[in-house]
Amino acid sequence: MKAEIITIGDEILIGQIVDTNSAFIAKELNKIGVSVYQITSVQDDKTHILKAFEAAESNVDIVIITGGLGPTKDDITKTTLAQYFEDTLVYDEAVLNNIKYLWKNFVKQPLLQVNIDQSLVLSKATALMNTSGSAPGMWIEKNNTIFISLPGVPFEMKELMNSEVLPRISNKFKRPYILHRTLLTYGLGESVIAERIKNWETALPDSIKLAYLPNLGRVRLRLSSTGFDKTAVIEGVDAQIETLLPLINDVFVGFEEHSSIEQLIGNQLVKLGKTLSVAESCTGGKIAENITAHGGASAYFKGGIVAYATETKIEVLKVAPELISEYSVVSSEVAEAMAQNVKTVFNSDYGIATTGNAGPSKGDSDAEIGTVYIAIATPDAVFSQQFNFGKQRLRVVQKAVTMAFTLFQKEIFKK
Amino acid sequence: MKAEIITIGDEILIGQIVDTNSAFIAKELNKIGVSVYQITSVQDDKTHILKAFEAAESNVDIVIITGGLGPTKDDITKTTLAQYFEDTLVYDEAVLNNIKYLWKNFVKQPLLQVNIDQSLVLSKATALMNTSGSAPGMWIEKNNTIFISLPGVPFEMKELMNSEVLPRISNKFKRPYILHRTLLTYGLGESVIAERIKNWETALPDSIKLAYLPNLGRVRLRLSSTGFDKTAVIEGVDAQIETLLPLINDVFVGFEEHSSIEQLIGNQLVKLGKTLSVAESCTGGKIAENITAHGGASAYFKGGIVAYATETKIEVLKVAPELISEYSVVSSEVAEAMAQNVKTVFNSDYGIATTGNAGPSKGDSDAEIGTVYIAIATPDAVFSQQFNFGKQRLRVVQKAVTMAFTLFQKEIFKK
Repeated sequence: MKAEIITIGDEILIGQIVDTNSAFIAKELNKIGVSVYQITSVQDDKTHILKAFEAAESNVDIVIITGGLGPTKDDITKTTLAQYFEDTLVYDEAVLNNIKYLWKNFVKQPLLQVNIDQSLVLSKATALMNTSGSAPGMWIEKNNTIFISLPGVPFEMKELMNSEVLPRISNKFKRPYILHRTLLTYGLGESVIAERIKNWETALPDSIKLAYLPNLGRVRLRLSSTGFDKTAVIEGVDAQIETLLPLINDVFVGFEEHSSIEQLIGNQLVKLGKTLSVAESCTGGKIAENITAHGGASAYFKGGIVAYATETKIEVLKVAPELISEYSVVSSEVAEAMAQNVKTVFNSDYGIATTGNAGPSKGDSDAEIGTVYIAIATPDAVFSQQFNFGKQRLRVVQKAVTMAFTLFQKEIFKK
Repeated sequence: MKAEIITIGDEILIGQIVDTNSAFIAKELNKIGVSVYQITSVQDDKTHILKAFEAAESNVDIVIITGGLGPTKDDITKTTLAQYFEDTLVYDEAVLNNIKYLWKNFVKQPLLQVNIDQSLVLSKATALMNTSGSAPGMWIEKNNTIFISLPGVPFEMKELMNSEVLPRISNKFKRPYILHRTLLTYGLGESVIAERIKNWETALPDSIKLAYLPNLGRVRLRLSSTGFDKTAVIEGVDAQIETLLPLINDVFVGFEEHSSIEQLIGNQLVKLGKTLSVAESCTGGKIAENITAHGGASAYFKGGIVAYATETKIEVLKVAPELISEYSVVSSEVAEAMAQNVKTVFNSDYGIATTGNAGPSKGDSDAEIGTVYIAIATPDAVFSQQFNFGKQRLRVVQKAVTMAFTLFQKEIFKK
């Protein structure tokens, strides 16, 4: 059961946007037992799109196409599909009614001919109703391959995947169970970990695949396995994890699946009945943003202060000016004061603070670029650590955020 | 002058990561006149990779490959390249010295055989020195096609692109000039804009391509043109923009190139000598984070408060409890109080505030999910607007951030 994803649009090939649709589609297909053989991004060019369709048809069972379904002249996916399938376009009444409904109730602008033409679909296709937009999806079967065309706007694509595409694929095919489990580690490079678990890795059965994913100081180890007997797949992978864990005990942080580190933290805080607030200098709001990206954060997250300027640290976070002049604004003393005071300001049980110099220029302190102090205030103590995260601004910020969550997670899980 | 980007790694095809490397590479290649024909993501599978190499070689002049160069067993790009070019791997002394230097000064862990083996390169290749990691890039010429292999870790890939790949391509080829200019609009759907500028679009010369990019309430119009006479390309596009602008005057927000809306705002604040602070409820720090993502923000950004809980709005932002009980926490009155008070807390000239209900559950107010109030406090006034951004949490947040910047930009550019 193999699929190819084809994303259509010059904006991808000139680097104007990052193709996030493919990752979403791939993840969802994996969950229902369909593996993705290839992802191909092609230009808004008929010849090129036709070539991609042909190549995909020879390689896979399911071709999912996104993009190029809009009402403007640069959108050519539908006419190209018609040519590929030697088919004509016909109006779909249900789709047209949906468009009229959307225009009347939400768009509130005149319905133009190009909007009406959005209800044209291939005569051989099953139209997939897009309740959030005017471009319908299409499901077309040819010999042994299914072509599915979806709009490129991410939330419309996602809705159609969930409401139409995944249920239809699930009904039509007997699919294996695909399992990925990812172990997060922090503190050792991938080659050292590989050396350490060499014997274990060599003894892995062929049915289980191991991948090393290093990024920003973390190494993730992913175990993958596929099979029609779901229980056997899970038990097989679990057995391997059980023998792996003792080997990486000192660097193992947690499992990634189904929950990011922020979600693990949130769940644990709810369990403990504790609350958190954050004071961010160099991370500029990114810690708060990651926490609040998950619904339900208001149960444990009291809020945050982005204390970018030194005067903000003094005036809003009540850090003593003497502390700053004695130790500098980028110091463990100031980080700890920020963590403790933000706890007080927000009346929370825990506080996280960052202060550092992310570059490119030195800012309000003489600290070397890349220097970051992270402090954690607990209900009855405070501690901090110094790091150097290199010279590239966005990387420094991202590493600091990752490390803040890692330190905090260790703290709240040791209870 | 055409290129294909091949990204290798199961993590892309199972949707575990979003492939951001391709967008970066595509953008940089475009800047030096190389257009990207296709982006292909393939599994860590030798047969599949070889097939992708062959297809790319028949289509393009330059093949850029990322990923699969690590020291662990799942990394097979190098041996696959050796097979494709019928070549052997040899140790590169300069690369080995670099690895030894990195291990001694930064990694500070024992140098293993797998680390030493990272200095193996194809005998026919020019090694491209990776000063931040152990995996060198490679430049291999075959007939009329150049294969360039780069590590998949984004910052290592970026460094090698800038220090080695782009200069070498620029030296080797005479390249055309590629121009993209993108106009940001807000307030009309793409079909209405298309209808309005129909005559202008029909009269566009063949050398200029127009694309409509709708997203989250904004429509971007991109004009693209290519040619060896740079001045003629620029003048041709500028002339079209000059006749286009009067047609979309009421919805035109600005140009996207070289600067995001946050950078435009930052530059303008510096020019005006004014400062900004933000109070964020439903946007959870994302406005602050977008502002501080750019170096130099400390010149105009005083800081922000993430006032997630109602009590934070009262205690930290000093919003009167009576205001909240009378109008509800999601109201224009509270948004305006937040914007004015955050200005006072941070002693800034401008304040931006958001309060709303992003879902999935209703939280501290009865406001419908998707309802967001955005307020702007200026040096001498305050105003706010109500929006409904739909039911999907992340989309509500992103739309609110976009809209906050749009409103604020209009405000500071009208002076």
